[in-house]
Amino acid sequence: MEFFDRAETWSREEIERVQLVRLRNTVQQASGSPFYAARLKEAGIAPADIRSLDDLRSVPPTTKNDLREQYPAGLVAVPREQLVRLHASSGTTGAPTVVHHTQNDLNSWADLVARSMYMVGVRPDDVFQNTSGYGLFTGGLGIHYGAERLGCHTIPAGPGNTKRQIKFIRDFQTTVLHIIPSYALYLGAALEEEGLSGAELPCRVALIGAEPHTEEIRQRIEQMLGLKAYNSYGLSEMNGPGVAFECTHQTGMHVWEDAFIPEIVNPDTLEPVADGEVGELVMTTLCRQGMPILRYRTRDLTRFLSGECACGRMHRRIDRILGRADDMMIIKGVNIYPMQIEQVLMGFPEVGENYVIELVSEDFIDQLTVKVEIRDGYFVEDMRVLTGLQKAIVRQLRDEILVTPRVDLVQTGSLPKSEGKAVRVIDRRGKE
Amino acid sequence: MEFFDRAETWSREEIERVQLVRLRNTVQQASGSPFYAARLKEAGIAPADIRSLDDLRSVPPTTKNDLREQYPAGLVAVPREQLVRLHASSGTTGAPTVVHHTQNDLNSWADLVARSMYMVGVRPDDVFQNTSGYGLFTGGLGIHYGAERLGCHTIPAGPGNTKRQIKFIRDFQTTVLHIIPSYALYLGAALEEEGLSGAELPCRVALIGAEPHTEEIRQRIEQMLGLKAYNSYGLSEMNGPGVAFECTHQTGMHVWEDAFIPEIVNPDTLEPVADGEVGELVMTTLCRQGMPILRYRTRDLTRFLSGECACGRMHRRIDRILGRADDMMIIKGVNIYPMQIEQVLMGFPEVGENYVIELVSEDFIDQLTVKVEIRDGYFVEDMRVLTGLQKAIVRQLRDEILVTPRVDLVQTGSLPKSEGKAVRVIDRRGKE
Ligand SMILES: [Zn+2]
Ligand SMILES: [Zn+2]
Repeated sequence: MEFFDRAETWSREEIERVQLVRLRNTVQQASGSPFYAARLKEAGIAPADIRSLDDLRSVPPTTKNDLREQYPAGLVAVPREQLVRLHASSGTTGAPTVVHHTQNDLNSWADLVARSMYMVGVRPDDVFQNTSGYGLFTGGLGIHYGAERLGCHTIPAGPGNTKRQIKFIRDFQTTVLHIIPSYALYLGAALEEEGLSGAELPCRVALIGAEPHTEEIRQRIEQMLGLKAYNSYGLSEMNGPGVAFECTHQTGMHVWEDAFIPEIVNPDTLEPVADGEVGELVMTTLCRQGMPILRYRTRDLTRFLSGECACGRMHRRIDRILGRADDMMIIKGVNIYPMQIEQVLMGFPEVGENYVIELVSEDFIDQLTVKVEIRDGYFVEDMRVLTGLQKAIVRQLRDEILVTPRVDLVQTGSLPKSEGKAVRVIDRRGKE
Repeated sequence: MEFFDRAETWSREEIERVQLVRLRNTVQQASGSPFYAARLKEAGIAPADIRSLDDLRSVPPTTKNDLREQYPAGLVAVPREQLVRLHASSGTTGAPTVVHHTQNDLNSWADLVARSMYMVGVRPDDVFQNTSGYGLFTGGLGIHYGAERLGCHTIPAGPGNTKRQIKFIRDFQTTVLHIIPSYALYLGAALEEEGLSGAELPCRVALIGAEPHTEEIRQRIEQMLGLKAYNSYGLSEMNGPGVAFECTHQTGMHVWEDAFIPEIVNPDTLEPVADGEVGELVMTTLCRQGMPILRYRTRDLTRFLSGECACGRMHRRIDRILGRADDMMIIKGVNIYPMQIEQVLMGFPEVGENYVIELVSEDFIDQLTVKVEIRDGYFVEDMRVLTGLQKAIVRQLRDEILVTPRVDLVQTGSLPKSEGKAVRVIDRRGKE
């Protein structure tokens, strides 16, 4: 077993010992910012009060709203001339959220990304094609610097332009892709259209992230592109990519606990959930100087996976992102996450890549409709076959979400395709 | 006087001594690539034959077409695993041109950009907003790495989204911009629309490049944005930005001759032109390992400026880019460059930012029409005033280009605006 960083070989005790030292430093460092100086004072917490990892729970959480209110630099904890980079959210509503980095911050971020890539077998002689958008979005520059740290031959392709992506993959013999799941499926479909199969591509590994997706989607990506696809988790508030990453065992994502402290809490009570239970991921930076963040509420839903990973790393694993705390739909009083519906749909081999969830209210009663594309080979003339399939999907969905949906089967290509992130939920309730 | 790099203080003798050593190394290094191995053998040139800088002239030039034919990697001179980055042209026609870099190549490129920025007063405590596109285009990552090397607080804003650019400039107190001239004018106009003046902006310096433009355009940018604008020259085949750059005296761009050998030749005969005469710039890399290029025909037109610069740097200066060898229009048998027309137009204070050059053939005779936007304050009702202005423009254009154009004066806003590179010449000849 080869490791990129010694921290990958630490025992639980070593991890937690380092975490405590770094947490104390981080609380100290954070209190150099106007925001945390006030927030910690208000909560009556001095850096010296952090005597164990459990003491972190006394620190009030930080929300996206806090970041917005502190725009542009209220969380910055160093003199301005030490800052060398900022990243900002696209911020469709209200102030953008901004993260400022020092050179040390960028270096340790690049190390975390390089470590993640190395973990799944990426090496300096690989050719790495980055299909993420560059600029303010962290997926581009974040992964780019990691690949460069590793020494890969990096193609900063950026998003879109699928014909050129395929041309570059073939001409430069790309072995590693960074790609969001919906675009991976789109690329796979484009390959099929050109009469190419994934097996003919030189790609060996795909790093997939930025979008919640199911195990079935991952397997479909692996089959379409002829490679192994590894889940990546990150968010710009915690740098970007390189927060948690799957190892080759593909059994959940190891959180880089030498650089972050993850908690999973009940979004309503903020109490920790039982191990294995789904809750909101809360993250604390441990190595950041420019803008440390304490107990950031990510709004991402996941759970800790129990047991030890076969790879030997003791960094705790989280499940794939199971949705956004904000994506929760309340239908007939029941909490439902779109991911639950996707998971059921993708279990049917007849179901294609595209589906749409529509919510309407008819006579004040919520109606859930799921429109599903059926693969060409399965879209047969015999109505009885289709009706049987449709009933089976309704039944399995009802069992999963406890609400009976309407299911429409449609032909491949009749739902809108997207090159970017898929928008799969359309809520028309109260809008008719 | 402060310098970023000792090479900025070299005498002519030192520059040329280093050039000769590096040129020999470069020819040796280049002959490790399949392309130059064959090309140099064919020309009967061994690295040892380079005994003086003049011997460079015996080396056959390299063209864009050579780069295209050698796609994807025929000019690569190192083992593949040493490559860490590639940049590629957008390549609207034919194969893209690709440049492959080693880590050393990226480091020396970043040093050249950092040196250029330092030369015009940019320092680590500056806030630097990069409005270039990232990804495969070299203007984005190229300048970004230089700014980071210098230690500026870098905002990787990317192109477009003008409202957000202005918001960031104000919120983050941006002091240095990297911006193409046409977008600088667009940004200036957008500022005016928001009722802001350049003097209210925190920006002190703009690095402008990538588009040929006149001295008048520069002055207009400086006035609209309330800053000093410095010309930058680069092309992806020679890394990208950081090839030649203006010092604070704004009297031409110093070519970083410790990293490149510039020649200016007659595009037809390839003979060197007399000092001060306009010709095609031909460039040789001196520090590149991954993909050295010998005598690259840039197709860019410029001239060497004579005399010593007041800044004391002995690196030779070239004039702003006066056009593309390919942009040359032949009208009624006369060679005309669009830049000549722009230069005349911008001399008139009544003339706005936008103009369009249209070429049509009427009864087999070329007709040149220049449509010019007139600033609001000058677009008066009195036809005699406008007619006088129109005649003056016709006269000055005829004196400059030796062809009598038709000149149409139009109101501000009636010609199409562009957020990106301006397309100013429309050739309809033979298309009606
Ligand atoms: Zn593992
Ligand atoms: Zn000078």
